[in-house]
Amino acid sequence: MPITDDEIFATHEGGKLSVELRSPIETQRDLSIIYTPGVAQVSRAIHKEPELVDKYTWTERLVAVVSDGTAVLGLGDIGPRASLPVMEGKAALFRAFAGLNSIPLVLDTTDPDQIVQTLINLRPSFGAVNLEDISAPRCFEIERRVIEALDCPVMHDDQHGTAIVVLAALKGATRFLGKELAGLKVVVSGAGAAGVACAKILKAAGIDDIVVLDSKGIVHSGRTDMVEYKNELAAWSNPRGLTGGIAEALDGANVFLGVSAGTIEEKDVASMADDAIVFAMSNPDPEIHPDVAAKYAAVVATGRSDFPNQINNVLAFPGVFAGALDAGARRITENMKIAAADAILSVVGDELAADKIVPSPLDERVAPAVAKAVADAARADGVTA
Amino acid sequence: MPITDDEIFATHEGGKLSVELRSPIETQRDLSIIYTPGVAQVSRAIHKEPELVDKYTWTERLVAVVSDGTAVLGLGDIGPRASLPVMEGKAALFRAFAGLNSIPLVLDTTDPDQIVQTLINLRPSFGAVNLEDISAPRCFEIERRVIEALDCPVMHDDQHGTAIVVLAALKGATRFLGKELAGLKVVVSGAGAAGVACAKILKAAGIDDIVVLDSKGIVHSGRTDMVEYKNELAAWSNPRGLTGGIAEALDGANVFLGVSAGTIEEKDVASMADDAIVFAMSNPDPEIHPDVAAKYAAVVATGRSDFPNQINNVLAFPGVFAGALDAGARRITENMKIAAADAILSVVGDELAADKIVPSPLDERVAPAVAKAVADAARADGVTA
Repeated sequence: MPITDDEIFATHEGGKLSVELRSPIETQRDLSIIYTPGVAQVSRAIHKEPELVDKYTWTERLVAVVSDGTAVLGLGDIGPRASLPVMEGKAALFRAFAGLNSIPLVLDTTDPDQIVQTLINLRPSFGAVNLEDISAPRCFEIERRVIEALDCPVMHDDQHGTAIVVLAALKGATRFLGKELAGLKVVVSGAGAAGVACAKILKAAGIDDIVVLDSKGIVHSGRTDMVEYKNELAAWSNPRGLTGGIAEALDGANVFLGVSAGTIEEKDVASMADDAIVFAMSNPDPEIHPDVAAKYAAVVATGRSDFPNQINNVLAFPGVFAGALDAGARRITENMKIAAADAILSVVGDELAADKIVPSPLDERVAPAVAKAVADAARADGVTA
Repeated sequence: MPITDDEIFATHEGGKLSVELRSPIETQRDLSIIYTPGVAQVSRAIHKEPELVDKYTWTERLVAVVSDGTAVLGLGDIGPRASLPVMEGKAALFRAFAGLNSIPLVLDTTDPDQIVQTLINLRPSFGAVNLEDISAPRCFEIERRVIEALDCPVMHDDQHGTAIVVLAALKGATRFLGKELAGLKVVVSGAGAAGVACAKILKAAGIDDIVVLDSKGIVHSGRTDMVEYKNELAAWSNPRGLTGGIAEALDGANVFLGVSAGTIEEKDVASMADDAIVFAMSNPDPEIHPDVAAKYAAVVATGRSDFPNQINNVLAFPGVFAGALDAGARRITENMKIAAADAILSVVGDELAADKIVPSPLDERVAPAVAKAVADAARADGVTA
């Protein structure tokens, strides 16, 4: 039965979250324990021994989902208020999949200085920060500065959550096809937050031939119309020095990763190498219909739940934050992200198939597996407290 | 059975709050409604019609409990982390008594500019602000500036929550004694947040003879050692121009309100007028033991649950915020506070007695009665949206 607007709006009415008590307040005794005078004992203990704040408050395992509403889903800069349903949804997923408390904090400023300072001021209120739906290139600077300023896990999910799941899916696809990552020719359509992060994680995973496109075509060092971060991208990507557009990029390529709202034509997919891999992840409309892509590609994935191989960030972020917090990690390292990708793939196990390169977003085994792998990687990297 | 430290710490372990889902995420359909793609419909609707944010997110009825940890209970400036158990407790009471969502936001700054700016930046994240445990005189400036900056209910509970309940209790005591408020000689011991707010609300309620004391004695206009807000206090209080200390103030007075950590002697209470009223509200140790006070005073109250007449802010703040939010109030007016006091007293009704001038903090009728009265007063004052 198709989902109706009525059903959607009814479910969102009043918001999707509630703050509840962990123990009841029904008697004078309850009140005296939970509030005054009992609470003074706990405050006094934390004042004396500051690390007890982790044991006796909720903040150690609380993820702040922070957005300024400048790049919300595919809707663009719709502002903090209109971004709230998404941030509440994110918080709901933290609870549902990783058992973490999470609160949406949306900001009525787009100034990086203000965003960073606000989070510095709020630091004792949470245990981790999930940056969300912040536009590029501001998201790169903001994430870097928040990571530098706060001694807790910070991750811009649009970048790294996407990159982790893409890496997992690409490892799944190549394993199914009996190929290695190294040597693949990869085309990334979209040079925003997700595209740049995907390119970076694939480079770190050993893929050298990565070509990224923005709305004007292939990112290459001969272009003079690019902002700074794209010049940096041009410096380390596109080793064959390609120029032109998607047709030039896809000719002979092994992998297409679509993370923009663009489209690709059937003939371009037809021009890819044998056993091509197509991840057409744009939502709600994939860059190419998966049935068309499947005429030429050996493995096809989308961001949608109504086709096989749904590449969805929810496979990554609940477990990544849970694992980082379990280990007491002070930051999220590249190894932790790669470990998360491997853990996602590990859940697929023997079921690996052309239409099963990643687990279902609802698979309850994923978040615990990711959390364990991420915590182990955090300890191995020595970033725990 | 006395409450043990073990019992207190066990109850606080892991914190006292959790963020929960209002509807489950178990199926692909749930995920598509609560998160992508369904949530995009809701975000798009709010972007088009901004006031829908009140209907489709949790923020309209979310109270941010905000502190910088500079004046926590009687513990003083113990910092934001050590204040967290109190703020979580406060949020728990909002849920338990008024059904409101509430999140603790503790700030790693004591700079008024930073505190105000942080709340301005976070404005779309909540529907009201309960300022808590911020030291005087900073609390006066911060509250004033936050009220000016935000178009939502803002209240520093240490000031106005206390003042509302004191007014309710004093009205209860005078009604029991068959007296009028006007004409009473009132002594307020403590010139911090609570003392100043109590003096102001009693003045607004028609009491002219109010004498306030700080740690150095009676606040009067001849003193040269006072900060600005105490000079303002001196200008409108103490009409008989008293000087000296608590003994001079209490001689012949009708009412003692203790809101500091000081003590008063038996002989001072003995010097009060007939049918005296003593509210010894210091916690955990009242300014004078209620049994001693009762030798001379006709009505005695404390802040403690183990004596009659517990004067506790929880009688006020859940209902005040619920009523303000119910009415869509943009601020909290003096009339709303006075209406709250009257509503608290109304719940006592025919049970009014020397040992029952206020309802029990656990009386479930209080918050709804306060909420209704506050909402009505907000509408009457024309401060609703």
